[in-house]
This record gives sequence, structure tokens and C-alpha cells, in this order.
Amino acid sequence: MNKVRVAVAGASGYAGGEVLRLLLGHPFVEIGALTAGSNAGEQLGTLQPHLTPLADRVLEETSLATLAGHDVVVLALPHGQSGPLAAQLGDDVLVIDCGADFRLTDPGDWERFYGSAHAGTWPYGLPELPGQRELLAGAKRVAVPGCYPTVSTLTLAPAVAAGLVEPDVVVVAASGTSGAGKAPKTNLLGSEVMGSVSAYGVGGVHRHTPEITQNLGGLTDAPVRVSFTPLLVPMPRGILATGSAPLAGPVTAAEAYDVYAKAYADEPFVHLLPQGQWPQTKSVLGSNAVHLQVTVDEAAGRLVAVGAVDNLAKGTAGAAVQCLNLALGYDEATGLSAVGLAP
Amino acid sequence: MNKVRVAVAGASGYAGGEVLRLLLGHPFVEIGALTAGSNAGEQLGTLQPHLTPLADRVLEETSLATLAGHDVVVLALPHGQSGPLAAQLGDDVLVIDCGADFRLTDPGDWERFYGSAHAGTWPYGLPELPGQRELLAGAKRVAVPGCYPTVSTLTLAPAVAAGLVEPDVVVVAASGTSGAGKAPKTNLLGSEVMGSVSAYGVGGVHRHTPEITQNLGGLTDAPVRVSFTPLLVPMPRGILATGSAPLAGPVTAAEAYDVYAKAYADEPFVHLLPQGQWPQTKSVLGSNAVHLQVTVDEAAGRLVAVGAVDNLAKGTAGAAVQCLNLALGYDEATGLSAVGLAP
Amino acid sequence: MNKVRVAVAGASGYAGGEVLRLLLGHPFVEIGALTAGSNAGEQLGTLQPHLTPLADRVLEETSLATLAGHDVVVLALPHGQSGPLAAQLGDDVLVIDCGADFRLTDPGDWERFYGSAHAGTWPYGLPELPGQRELLAGAKRVAVPGCYPTVSTLTLAPAVAAGLVEPDVVVVAASGTSGAGKAPKTNLLGSEVMGSVSAYGVGGVHRHTPEITQNLGGLTDAPVRVSFTPLLVPMPRGILATGSAPLAGPVTAAEAYDVYAKAYADEPFVHLLPQGQWPQTKSVLGSNAVHLQVTVDEAAGRLVAVGAVDNLAKGTAGAAVQCLNLALGYDEATGLSAVGLAP
Amino acid sequence: MNKVRVAVAGASGYAGGEVLRLLLGHPFVEIGALTAGSNAGEQLGTLQPHLTPLADRVLEETSLATLAGHDVVVLALPHGQSGPLAAQLGDDVLVIDCGADFRLTDPGDWERFYGSAHAGTWPYGLPELPGQRELLAGAKRVAVPGCYPTVSTLTLAPAVAAGLVEPDVVVVAASGTSGAGKAPKTNLLGSEVMGSVSAYGVGGVHRHTPEITQNLGGLTDAPVRVSFTPLLVPMPRGILATGSAPLAGPVTAAEAYDVYAKAYADEPFVHLLPQGQWPQTKSVLGSNAVHLQVTVDEAAGRLVAVGAVDNLAKGTAGAAVQCLNLALGYDEATGLSAVGLAP
Repeated sequence: MNKVRVAVAGASGYAGGEVLRLLLGHPFVEIGALTAGSNAGEQLGTLQPHLTPLADRVLEETSLATLAGHDVVVLALPHGQSGPLAAQLGDDVLVIDCGADFRLTDPGDWERFYGSAHAGTWPYGLPELPGQRELLAGAKRVAVPGCYPTVSTLTLAPAVAAGLVEPDVVVVAASGTSGAGKAPKTNLLGSEVMGSVSAYGVGGVHRHTPEITQNLGGLTDAPVRVSFTPLLVPMPRGILATGSAPLAGPVTAAEAYDVYAKAYADEPFVHLLPQGQWPQTKSVLGSNAVHLQVTVDEAAGRLVAVGAVDNLAKGTAGAAVQCLNLALGYDEATGLSAVGLAP
Repeated sequence: MNKVRVAVAGASGYAGGEVLRLLLGHPFVEIGALTAGSNAGEQLGTLQPHLTPLADRVLEETSLATLAGHDVVVLALPHGQSGPLAAQLGDDVLVIDCGADFRLTDPGDWERFYGSAHAGTWPYGLPELPGQRELLAGAKRVAVPGCYPTVSTLTLAPAVAAGLVEPDVVVVAASGTSGAGKAPKTNLLGSEVMGSVSAYGVGGVHRHTPEITQNLGGLTDAPVRVSFTPLLVPMPRGILATGSAPLAGPVTAAEAYDVYAKAYADEPFVHLLPQGQWPQTKSVLGSNAVHLQVTVDEAAGRLVAVGAVDNLAKGTAGAAVQCLNLALGYDEATGLSAVGLAP
Repeated sequence: MNKVRVAVAGASGYAGGEVLRLLLGHPFVEIGALTAGSNAGEQLGTLQPHLTPLADRVLEETSLATLAGHDVVVLALPHGQSGPLAAQLGDDVLVIDCGADFRLTDPGDWERFYGSAHAGTWPYGLPELPGQRELLAGAKRVAVPGCYPTVSTLTLAPAVAAGLVEPDVVVVAASGTSGAGKAPKTNLLGSEVMGSVSAYGVGGVHRHTPEITQNLGGLTDAPVRVSFTPLLVPMPRGILATGSAPLAGPVTAAEAYDVYAKAYADEPFVHLLPQGQWPQTKSVLGSNAVHLQVTVDEAAGRLVAVGAVDNLAKGTAGAAVQCLNLALGYDEATGLSAVGLAP
Repeated sequence: MNKVRVAVAGASGYAGGEVLRLLLGHPFVEIGALTAGSNAGEQLGTLQPHLTPLADRVLEETSLATLAGHDVVVLALPHGQSGPLAAQLGDDVLVIDCGADFRLTDPGDWERFYGSAHAGTWPYGLPELPGQRELLAGAKRVAVPGCYPTVSTLTLAPAVAAGLVEPDVVVVAASGTSGAGKAPKTNLLGSEVMGSVSAYGVGGVHRHTPEITQNLGGLTDAPVRVSFTPLLVPMPRGILATGSAPLAGPVTAAEAYDVYAKAYADEPFVHLLPQGQWPQTKSVLGSNAVHLQVTVDEAAGRLVAVGAVDNLAKGTAGAAVQCLNLALGYDEATGLSAVGLAP
């Protein structure tokens, strides 16, 4: 098969690095231009030394000129930078945006949470949502979901879609630090995060809240309310999301498990663990797998589900590759693995 | 002041070690017998090398004979072992149990969650609960609260007591690994826990659930429901609890903050952070402090509060010393600190 | 190409799990029997949940019967168990031993450090040593090197072979905890290892000392002396080895670098970093790459070199697969990657 | 006893924060001005939330005006800033410098490693060196040793002083990240350091090399050579130093142990572990203790010793307080503890 040439904008960051890690193992991809902002001109090996085979590649400026001439452009840029750039890329180029710019359908949500003009809405790269896989096949524009929304949505979607719960959900999600990016900040120093857990963006102010609400809202006619609390935990990668909601009526743990088992029976990357086994993030590190479990707390009157993903893999770059495969007509799992790096 | 002689049963475990760490800094305490189970006969220095001044002390068997002749006996034993032992200790001896045996008031709860006969109920060592400080003054028996219940209760108590929320609470609490004890288990190996977050005891089955319910139930006439999910995170110490509940009526974040500020205004160890600053466990490591914050999520219709404690300090051994002080009439803060070890 | 059937003995441990992780990505391998000791009868998914595609596989007893009928048998067993088992496996079966049983050439060394009868010596699976690749081509028995010896040897080999240094070397190597295995021990608990570095096996008593001495001894006529100190550091995977030795004569850092560059110019997995860039273990996690750097400390009169490997990958399972490829005539890099999982 | 008023310059950094943590527990100290550079004007609680009792204190500008009027001034400033400031502080004020400015006796060493004019040399705050305690008694100026030099020196001093070894030493020291300070840098992000060990400053270029050489050089007439390699390991605090040197003549491990035992017999903070037990950093976290062990590797012909300290406590702030006590005539251990925070 002919290879497609893929450019990666933002190759010096965590998302861009993970896209490259995966593309290096993709049989139908040739890696083209690697671009960056302030790191342009540097060798990739000094910034991403784990990408050994690309150590000698030099980063170019992110611009129309450097991104031109590729079959696919993956954007791994800070929020707000994808919109203007994407507008200038040709309609025949597959553009996959790992940023937030094109995820939200409601311009008001965008403006409220991101504080700038809404760039638009692209096909949403979560193939596991009903009808989404069809939208992504052959698409030329894809908005990769946020990491928290990916796991939060998949953790609660079957329960909401089946009406097992009132759509008044509480999600507390613990994330590794790479989700906060590679820009140096005091509160992200190793000295600060090791040995500590903290909460942030509490009270509905985290930007991923409207995205989770939008995803779950597409599964029910009832109005959805989401209480979302992110935690920063001392590990580089991984998110564990705990989701719960009031039971809409009597349901046993076994019945809830069956609903989840059926919902994800044909999904290549969503793995419902055997009943009684709960997810851990280590099992999915570096992989595109989602590990899930669900139960019912009768005394509390709630369904409780837990999901684990790698925020950079299935939560970002893995989803980008999965969508690339769907958009270009490859097998959806090409270049992706459901095997985690443990211990 | 005359010193009291304190024996510590279970001196080779994490709780016992922390009790000793604190007692070494207590001006009115002389450390007496140190006892253990299978580790009896060994030098403390090989098992607890951080307790440098006690390195040469030899562990004795835990028995009536070795514990006799002390003013205070602190029990740091596996659940179920304190009951039989305490029954034989004299009524004039202050017995402080760091285990669960005497915490629950409802024998049915005990039997359901611990699977054995209920040993009884002792004054509950959470002085910050209304009326509790009075019960502890001069007490001869004290049941130290569980680590999760301590922080979960303090995080939600003002909101429940003031009727700000419906007492239908969701708590997700992330704990360091020392809460799981020192007995070697594969799932607690460093190789397993580093780089990973996992959920366990999900769905209302964790033993601390009835204790949290009991504590919050004492603050309201309405029936309390608690959905409690513990997470294991890669750090040795600390718990961060995220608690939320549906608003009972309109309340602003500032009003909720005021309720918390008043509730804890006179507490020496409960520190409500300035509005907008959220707790992190590192700030309370090794200390008896509790750091708290609260807000209101209007869109979700919930009050959300977050609390941080050191599970071994304020969550266990610090509470034991605080109660020792209250029971013996010392200043409540003697030998305790509100300063954490950071970074 | 026809696939070879590979059995893995010791599939529930860390080395066995890593062998399986790599074999799942090997295009010419079909995974056959998975065997274990006390874990026989359990599903792999409960013991190695990261191996998602093999979650339903049931572990069999490690025995001649279960291992029979495979083209390749990989042994990932505790030291001393490979010898008796291997003696019964047919000469036509490729047997790759990840244990220590067949590494040492001197029976006296074996007896002194392992305390039992020497099982023999097999071709040593470090293809990067002079002449070793030829011995491994077509071999039916391979002894996979120890993790510390792999990185320690590669870090110092060019300097010793070229006579830049007196072969009186000092190696201090910091290892993640997975090198100590999956059997639960108190000193390996997460609570113990997180936030701590310790030394162990100090003073020449670690079992990998004679193996390093043997490797370097093959490169020079002078008698080799090795001072080896291992450190346990708070991470699951990875070894960073610091090696130094007295300069045999005047040599500049640039000259030493050139010697290393030439020595490893054709090696697919040994990557000498650009001068001035020092290795970190994160860059090689999950990969078969070795990252190296070397310099000269003129004031101290020593050459200093640093190497990084993943102890489970290139340090164990990656080497096993690399040797499998050589023994069976595949491209040496089949199923292996030089890309690490970072951050 | 009358309290002394102590100002801390650099109160927002790690060293300054640790000084304050210790001073909060010092019975004869009243905490005066807290000053900072760019953080002046902020509340300490937002920058050092673990210092709960000082949360409301506001940082002032570091200047002569704010530091005036104190009995003691502790400088915890970036290297090079102490010199000019100290020159203006009165001779009657006790000035304790946690920086490097006044440690080195050889101006050439200073200029070569720090690249600026030498500020001078003050009494060196390592009381455990022969004769040093006398110099510190009543001193008005103290240069606190570097963290690496403290533990490296104490680990090898008895062997060098007793002539057990040739003074041609190799030190490899693994440090937590707080030693690198609180200024945000990409390579110190939690995402980068967790799960990774790296070497830096290799080949004699680390600034602590001449300080170690100077310390050991004071113990022998022979010229001292030091090969020093620092490692960055994934933990916030602690240094484990591995030191070795060629034996000068026949000596057994027991004889070497005896030399160490005698050398440190009267030291309140240096604790030689029982033979066979090796140090770990966790045992000394937050404490002023140094844990040591020594042995002889006969095959390698080397003495090997290992030492552990908390880089911020005994390695910086603890030494500052210890010297404050000596300078002011308090008991040397006032406000200091030999008990670590573990697990």
C-alpha cells in the first residue's frame, strides 16, 4: 500500500511526541515535516530523546509552508492556535486536531470556557459513540476529544444511553501530570507533584466539563448535568475516572454489567473487565485500550463506573491515529495496540 | 510535669511507627514497652530505621504482661485484635485504639462489614465533631477514627450540619499506599503502584462507608446516604477527599465558604484555605493539619468540598495523640504540629 | 512466513509478562502455552491485566508436558529452576533462558554466588559483544544476560576493549523495582520504595558482579576488577549505570567519544547520544534501545560513562526476542523498537 | 530564655521554606522578616502552603532595610547573591548563608566553577569535621555546606582521615529533585522526572566537586582526587551517596566499621547503622540525621561506604539551624530531630 505523508505540528510537546511515537509504528505512514513554535531549529533528539529513530530530525517553524504537501496534518498545538491554521489548509488534506478548537458544538460554551471566538465544529473523534464511526469514515477534518471527556464519556455512556441512571452525574477523575503539558510551571515541578495529590478546576470551571456534558447529552433526551472534579496525581500518564449517577429505577450490578458488555461488545479498544476486577491506569499505559468496570451501590442508590485510559494515547494521540485510520479507510486498529506497558 | 508512660502495641507497623514518631516529640511522654506480633524479638531499628533514637529497642510480644504497668496503652493492631486485649486492660489505664474495633455504634454495621462479633463502642476520637471534645476529656477509652472517615467527615460536616445540602453525598478519596498497611501483598508492591491509579472497594463495600455515614448522620435528622469510592494513588502518605452533594436550596460559593469558616474558626488543626486555593496532600504530610476548601457548582446544582490529611498523622497517630492530650488534660496540640513536610 | 509457536514458562512474573508484551507484537510468532508455578489455573487477565488480548488465557503448570510441542520455549523462572527443566527439553527446540542458570562460564563463580551446582554455560545473549552475534545465529540454547550486566558491560566495553582505561572499574547502577521481581516482600512495598533510594548488595556480593567481570574480562588480557554497587530507586522500570575507571594514558573526551562511536556504529539498538547529552531511563522505557554517553574527567584521571536501559526490555525480554530473531534467522530487530514510552 | 529574632531571605524557595519549617519548632526563635525576590508582596500561604501557621505572612523585598533589626539573618538565595548582601549586614548580626558564596577557600576554584569574583570564606558549617565545632561556637558568619558535599564528606571522611584508603575517591550520589530548586524548568517537570533516573554534571564539572575535594583534603596530607557523578532520581527529597576508594592496605570490613564507629561515636546526628544494614533516604526525611554504613570489597580492593541525608534538612536548613545553635551557644540539637518521616 502507498504510504501517506504525515506532518506533525507541535512535535516538541507531549501530544506531538506521542503522535510520533505511534506513527513510527504505523505501517502506512511516512513521517513528514515536524514543526514547532519556539523550539523550531532544534534537533528532535534533544527535546524528545525517546524517539531514537528521529533523533537527528530538525524541527521547522509551524507554518503553511512547512505543512504544505502532506496527505495528513496532525495539529498538536495549544488551544486557539488550530483554528486559524486549519482554515488555510486545503480541503483535500486530512487535518486532525488534537486541540480543543473544534470539539464543542455550542459557540456559547466555547466562548464561556475558552474566552475567544468559536472556530467551528468538526467530526468528533470518539468512534465508540453511536453513529460517530460513520461520520469519521472518509472525513477530512477530525476533532480529537479531550482526554478527560474520552474516559468520562465511555465510563458513563452505556448507563445514560440505556436510561439506567438519571443524567445527573458526578465524575472525579485522577490524571497524571502530562495532561497539563510540557510548559514549565512551578506547580508542575517534580518536587511539587511527587508525593502529593491535589484538586484543581473544581466547581464546574474545568474546560472539559461542557465537552462531557455534550457527549452524554447526545445519548438521552433528558437534560444532562455533570459535576466534574479533576485531580492531579503523581504519575506522568494515565487517567482514572470514577463516574456515578442516581439509579433511575431498580437495577442489579449484574444487569448493569450486561448493559455495558453489550454496549461495547464489538469495540476493539474498550475492554470491560471481568466482574469484580477494577481498572488501573498502569494496564493501559502506552496503549489505545480503555479498561472499564461498573457496579451498583444499592445503599447509596447509585450506579458507579470506573474507567482507565492513557491520556496521551487513547486520550489524545491514539485517538488521532484511530481517526486517521477511519478517515483513510485503513483497519481501525492499524498501528495501535491494546497492550499496556506494565509494571 | 510528670511524664506518663506509654506502651505501643503494634510498634512494627505503619500506624505504630507513626505513633512513636509523634511520641518522641511529646514533652510529657515516656515511651514504655514496644510490642509486636511476628516481629517480637527484633530490634526496632531494623524495622523502623527512621526512628533513629529508638533503634536499639527490642520488640516484645504483645500481651497483657508486656502492656501492664503503663499509664497509657496505644493499640495499633489489625482489626479485631483490639477487642479481646482491651477487655483485659484495667479501667484506670487510658487505652487508645487506632483500629476499627470500637468505632461503630451499630453492631449490625460491624458484623456486616467486618464479619465478627461487635466489641462495643468507645468515645470517638474526632474532637472536631460537635460535642465530641467534651466526651474525650478525661476519657479512659478512645476509638481513633478511620483515616478516610476523618477527612471525609470534616470535608462535608459543615454543609450537612447547616443543611446546605441534601445528605446524599458522593465521596471519592485518593489515598497513599500506607493506608493499606505493611503486610506484603503483590498489588501493593512499588512496581505495581508507581505510575498507576486504581479504584478498589467500589460500590459501598469499603469498611469505612458505615463510619462516614454514622458521622454525618449525627449532624442531621434526615437519613444520610454515602457513595464512597477509594482510590489508591502512587504516594506513600496522604488522602485527598472530594465530597459533593446536591444543594438543598440556593447558596453561593461565598455563603458556603462562610459556613465552613465559622464551623472551623476555633479548630486548631482544621485550616480552611483562602477562597480559590485548593488543598494538596503534600502540605499536610507528617502534620496534624487538615486543609479544606469548598465551592458551589451552580450548573451541576452541587456543593463541592475537598479536604487533605495525612492518613497516618491526623488520620491515625496524630488523632491518637490529640485524644491522649484531651483525655489527660494536656493542651490539645501538645507534641503535634500543623506544619507539613514539603516539598 | 510460517509462524513459530512459542511457549512462555513463568508467564505470571514480570519477565514473563514483558516477553509476552513483546511477542504480541512479533509478526512471526504464535503464542503457545503460558505456564506458571503457584498461579497455574488462573486467568492471565487477573495477573497481567495489561496484556489485554491474552486476558482470557489460562495459565498451565510449568512442566515438560505443557512446554512440549513448541518451536521455542522461553524460560522466565527463578534462578535455579531453568537448569533441570532445560535438560529435558529436546535439542531441536530453541530454549531461551531469561534466568541466570547458564550465564557464567566459571562453575566456581556460580557456586559462590548462587550456592548450588552449576548447570552449564550457554551462548550468551549479548549480540553487541565481539563475536557474540555469530555464536547466536542458529543457536538452540541462549542464556539471556542479567539486566545490570547488560547495561554495565555496554557502558564500559569500548573503553576496556580499546585500552583507554585500566580494567579496574567502578559501577554504580540505579535500578527500578521490577528488577527485584513480583514476589511480595515488605522492603519492596510501594510505601517503602516511593520517596526513597537505598543501596543493597554492596561490597561485591551482588550476583551480577561476576557476570560483569566475565564480560569485561573477555575484552582485555589484563585481569579485570569490578566494584559494583546497585541502588534501588523509586520507579518501576529502568536502569541507569554509571561506570568509571582510571585512564590508562592521556585521552580527551572527544577521543573517548570517538572510540564509543566507532564501537557501536553498526549496532541497531545502541545509541550514543550527541556529546554533552546524558542518558535518562525514561527515554528507553519499553524499548530495546540502550542510550550511552562518555566523557573524561581530567582532574580525577578517570573515564566516566553512563548507560540507560529498560531492565525488563533490553535488560531481559527484549534481549530474549533479539536472540530469538538471531537464532531463527529473522531480522534482528523484528518485533522490537528503539522508541521509548515518554513522558 | 530570651528569643532571638530571625529573618529569612529567600523564604519562597525550597531552602527558605525548610529553614522556616524548622524554625517554627525551635523554642528560642521568633520568626521575623520573610523576604523574597519576585514573590515579594505575596502571602506565604500561597507559595508554601505547608507552613500553615505562617500562611498569612506577607513576603517583603529582600533588602538591607527589611533584614535590619534582627539577631540572625538566614540567607537562602541563589548563588552569588549572598556576597553583596552580607557585606552590608552588621558584624554583630549572625549571618548564616545557605548558598555557596562563602564555602570555598580557593578563589580559583570559585571562579572556575561559579564564574564570578570570589566573595570570601566563612567558617564552614559542618560541625562533624575535626575542629569545626570550635570554629562555629560564637561565630557571626557561617557558610552552610552544600548538600552533596555534606553527605559525600561524612561518608568518606573516617576512611580518608584514618588512611584506610588512597584519597582517590569515586562518589556517585543520587538526589531528589528539590536540590535543583523551585524555578520552573522543563527537565524538572514531574512528567519528566517521575519514572526516570538521569545523570548530569558528569566528568568533574558539578560545582560541588571542589567542595568535596576541599573537605577531604583537610583530612590527609596526600593530594585528594574526587570523581563525582550526581544522579537525579524521582523523589522530592533525599540524597544517597555511594563512595569508594582503593584500599591503602589490608583492612577487613569489621576493622573499617570500627574506624567509622569511633569517628562518629559522639556525634548527635551521625548514625552508623548496625553492620549489614544499608542506608535509605526515607529514614532521614525531614530529619537532621545522617545514616551511614561501610564495608570492604576485597575482590575489588576497595572500601565502599554509603550515606543518606535529607538534602533540604541536614543537607541545608538543618545544618543552618545546627550552626545557629552552635553560634549562639544553645544545645546543638535544639529544634532538630534525628527522626525521619517514614514511610
